[in-house]
Amino acid sequence: MNLKDIGEFGFIKRITPDSVNNPVNVMRAIGDDAAVFAIGKNECVVLTTDLLVERVHFIKEAVTGYQLGYKSLAVNLSDIAAMGAIPQHAFVSIGIPKETSIEYLDEIYRGMKDLAKQYNVNILGGDTTSSIVDLIINVVVTGVAKKKSLLYRNTAKEGDVIFCTGLLGDSKAGLDFILKSEQPKNVQEKRLFEAHCLPRPHIEEGLFLANSGVVHSCIDISDGLSSDLMHIAEESNVGFILQEDAIPVSPDLLHYCKEHGYSAIEYALAGGEDYVLVCTADAKKATKLENDFYKTFKRTLYRIGTITKEKKYLMKRNDGTFSDIKPKGWDHFA
Amino acid sequence: MNLKDIGEFGFIKRITPDSVNNPVNVMRAIGDDAAVFAIGKNECVVLTTDLLVERVHFIKEAVTGYQLGYKSLAVNLSDIAAMGAIPQHAFVSIGIPKETSIEYLDEIYRGMKDLAKQYNVNILGGDTTSSIVDLIINVVVTGVAKKKSLLYRNTAKEGDVIFCTGLLGDSKAGLDFILKSEQPKNVQEKRLFEAHCLPRPHIEEGLFLANSGVVHSCIDISDGLSSDLMHIAEESNVGFILQEDAIPVSPDLLHYCKEHGYSAIEYALAGGEDYVLVCTADAKKATKLENDFYKTFKRTLYRIGTITKEKKYLMKRNDGTFSDIKPKGWDHFA
Repeated sequence: MNLKDIGEFGFIKRITPDSVNNPVNVMRAIGDDAAVFAIGKNECVVLTTDLLVERVHFIKEAVTGYQLGYKSLAVNLSDIAAMGAIPQHAFVSIGIPKETSIEYLDEIYRGMKDLAKQYNVNILGGDTTSSIVDLIINVVVTGVAKKKSLLYRNTAKEGDVIFCTGLLGDSKAGLDFILKSEQPKNVQEKRLFEAHCLPRPHIEEGLFLANSGVVHSCIDISDGLSSDLMHIAEESNVGFILQEDAIPVSPDLLHYCKEHGYSAIEYALAGGEDYVLVCTADAKKATKLENDFYKTFKRTLYRIGTITKEKKYLMKRNDGTFSDIKPKGWDHFA
Repeated sequence: MNLKDIGEFGFIKRITPDSVNNPVNVMRAIGDDAAVFAIGKNECVVLTTDLLVERVHFIKEAVTGYQLGYKSLAVNLSDIAAMGAIPQHAFVSIGIPKETSIEYLDEIYRGMKDLAKQYNVNILGGDTTSSIVDLIINVVVTGVAKKKSLLYRNTAKEGDVIFCTGLLGDSKAGLDFILKSEQPKNVQEKRLFEAHCLPRPHIEEGLFLANSGVVHSCIDISDGLSSDLMHIAEESNVGFILQEDAIPVSPDLLHYCKEHGYSAIEYALAGGEDYVLVCTADAKKATKLENDFYKTFKRTLYRIGTITKEKKYLMKRNDGTFSDIKPKGWDHFA
């Protein structure tokens, strides 16, 4: 049998059985943005890890060392944000091909340290080794939270309002420049490129949602809005309807898509790597949540749809018709 | 500048500054077998990580998937053992080349899960991705301990007795079979090969030493006795004298070395990957520690030398003369 036949998620399902021998203090195992385990009575540790491999996750020639280092930490901080936890410590394993210059490595660590400093996160350890051909970076981030305030994927409820904490699709447009080996040619295109290379983890937003008391589920957008929302829906045993004209896209993305004949809504739905948070919240408290969010951050918490009992994934188009949403996320083994 | 010029430890020194932004609950950062951070009043989390890269750390054709999976977890459990902590959870990031068979991957996870089960450890998460050419495995293990009972590297004291919890050098002999592409040809050689491929992490021994109250410092033998003891000595600002005839080697190793004209004591000193613990203990309590160890495990705690004020690294030879011990550990960038 081949990996291609079962896919990434089939493989994860295959390795999951018999992996918990001592469930006593386990709060979340394989299957959420991060694992969670209890320490003592009230505290818990949230832990997430991401492995980045050259030529799979990044092209060394297309991004600076600074961007690579920054992003390798950012994607992990985003997972901690999606759990509603406070990030504390990072651990960096790096596998370095012999010909790598120290200056490039310095830039990787400068990017990581700049971001770590912003969020008061420590780099406490890791592992340093060589690699034959590809640069390898594995980052682990641990966070802490009170047991009661954690946000999970599998707890969305029928009738919940679906929100997202930022704009969608810019990152995919930024990736286009890398895939086409083009340079962004104006300030708008540079912003798209930076949305891809230097994403901001929504740590404060995650903590705000966790402390609101009315958010039922949360995930960060790494694979793409449609795929990530499907994770929430599948694991919560519900469906959803998104409202097409409510999906927030930037003027930069609209302009870029118009210029190239692309669909901005497709970029927003299937793009991925936006690292904003999508959450579902009690419908009765949704307006207050929106208002409080705005008061706190002076930015909009975007209301983009509704959780439904019926397990369908639908888009309500601007013309009033409904269409099915298909998963378009990334599968490493497909 | 090139990595080769500064070496692995030079690189680690280079990246260490400015890595701790929030020292409040940090108990150990970069520079011990594991990092340690406090959670709540009395508890702390111990975290270690090891990155294994194909063609650097293992040759896929020379070891089974089972052995690879087992060992990738074992080396991390050994770091937790060296801290005197209880291992709890493991997190496995894996980068898989497309042509890898599922059967081989199943064996990797079977090896990991068998070992995890033995020590009541959970595999709680990780990351699954593809890789272009090399198989990549990054394992993280977290453990817990009471703040007061942890064992560190940098706390050896003048006059301490140096002990080790098991035999040394077998692993290097086992590695010889891989490097020579030979098969072990009898039960003795098979044991040497297994010492390399399926090392037993000394978890119970680490907890025993931590709870004894008389052990001042501890490390696990990954680079080799001489290198690892030098880590203790350098960081504790002391020296040591080892007693040649006290270094414990197995009858299997003696026989193997005699047959091939190798020096068993060199295998023991410079071999590495034995994953036994080396510790230093209060000289006045050393005999009681030896006796208690024997009562508990029905095995010997080997007394191999003494910590000295003078910062020299010496071997007292069987003929009564002293010779300098030189570091012979592995440097990934040398």
